[in-house]
Amino acid sequence: TAFTTIGILLISVPNKDQLSLRITVKVPKTAMNSEEKTLVEIIEDNNQINLAKYINYVSAPQAGAIATFSGTTRDTFEGKTVVELRYEAYVPMAIKNLKSICSAARSSWDLHSIAVAHRLGIVPVGETSVFVAVSATHRADSLDACKFLIDELKASVPIWKKEVYSDGEVWKENPEFLERRLELGKDGGCCRRKIETPAHDKKSCCKPKVKVEEAID
Amino acid sequence: TAFTTIGILLISVPNKDQLSLRITVKVPKTAMNSEEKTLVEIIEDNNQINLAKYINYVSAPQAGAIATFSGTTRDTFEGKTVVELRYEAYVPMAIKNLKSICSAARSSWDLHSIAVAHRLGIVPVGETSVFVAVSATHRADSLDACKFLIDELKASVPIWKKEVYSDGEVWKENPEFLERRLELGKDGGCCRRKIETPAHDKKSCCKPKVKVEEAID
Repeated sequence: TAFTTIGILLISVPNKDQLSLRITVKVPKTAMNSEEKTLVEIIEDNNQINLAKYINYVSAPQAGAIATFSGTTRDTFEGKTVVELRYEAYVPMAIKNLKSICSAARSSWDLHSIAVAHRLGIVPVGETSVFVAVSATHRADSLDACKFLIDELKASVPIWKKEVYSDGEVWKENPEFLERRLELGKDGGCCRRKIETPAHDKKSCCKPKVKVEEAID
Repeated sequence: TAFTTIGILLISVPNKDQLSLRITVKVPKTAMNSEEKTLVEIIEDNNQINLAKYINYVSAPQAGAIATFSGTTRDTFEGKTVVELRYEAYVPMAIKNLKSICSAARSSWDLHSIAVAHRLGIVPVGETSVFVAVSATHRADSLDACKFLIDELKASVPIWKKEVYSDGEVWKENPEFLERRLELGKDGGCCRRKIETPAHDKKSCCKPKVKVEEAID
């Protein structure tokens, strides 16, 4: 495992038989990143999602792979002309759920950074409503985690969508979201659900390791 | 199937018993796109890959999903510090192979646009050497095709890589590429190989349809 030095503690006993005990605490990079490099954003006020910002966020010299997914407003839905989509969410719950699926992804794949952004309000045709970017040392981890994240987001994060057609509008829930809720029964709201991740993809978990070195100076 | 009108032919017979035969040729959108919206580029002269250009290329009002993969130079390989990577290719063959895997992806998934770019020469740590962007009406098509394209590229496109470490350098072939060549036997070069695509994902193929309408004006 690659280690990163996060601090060196030097203890000196000021007498003739001087002994310094150097304790170096090293934390595996993946364990550090799981704390640090996850960005979840809900974008309001009709601002566009800045793809480059999130791609830059997940980029790193240690990461050899970046997978992204962008969900955009299509011009048609089941033959009807779509003018725009409008998204609404209960933001604190949506952020909590998004963070939860990011943690689930980290527990299943060896990831460097994750960025997830969802736009609320009006999203015109051709513009991005949701963006996921995932970086990892290796290709398969980034691609599989990216797919997992967008699938879980669609199935479990409470964000509602109104399709505005040329001749009317419809509030609609994602069919995957409804399906998941039906599976859970009517009392099993999204937040009680435990996210299940594919066990066969499970990577060994990296616990912080403490390395103790004795040194006589 | 959604059709796009690409032309209307009006034939008028200039006599008293005037008959106009109107022939409307309509081509399914997916069939049109398979001809038009595939971009394959090999970038030389140490220019960076412009991710936004390729994402814009695959964006379209009809596409609700864009999946991308970016392969970047990592700072370490098996514990060694990597300074840079250098890529070389026999360009005409690499382009031919890249186009071939794009066609294979189109025959397996319902895609709108594909862009694949590979950089040659020196690629410093943190910069992108290969980029794939795929758009589709639906999410799963874009994600699965993106994974297929980068996996096939690594396994079958003849692009060679030199890893430059702080203490030396090594020309290396991708292990997946070697594996594929071994499977094929020493005479089965990459260009003789038939790309196999997952049959279970096969979508119905859309042939251009000609619709003939008779109209008496």
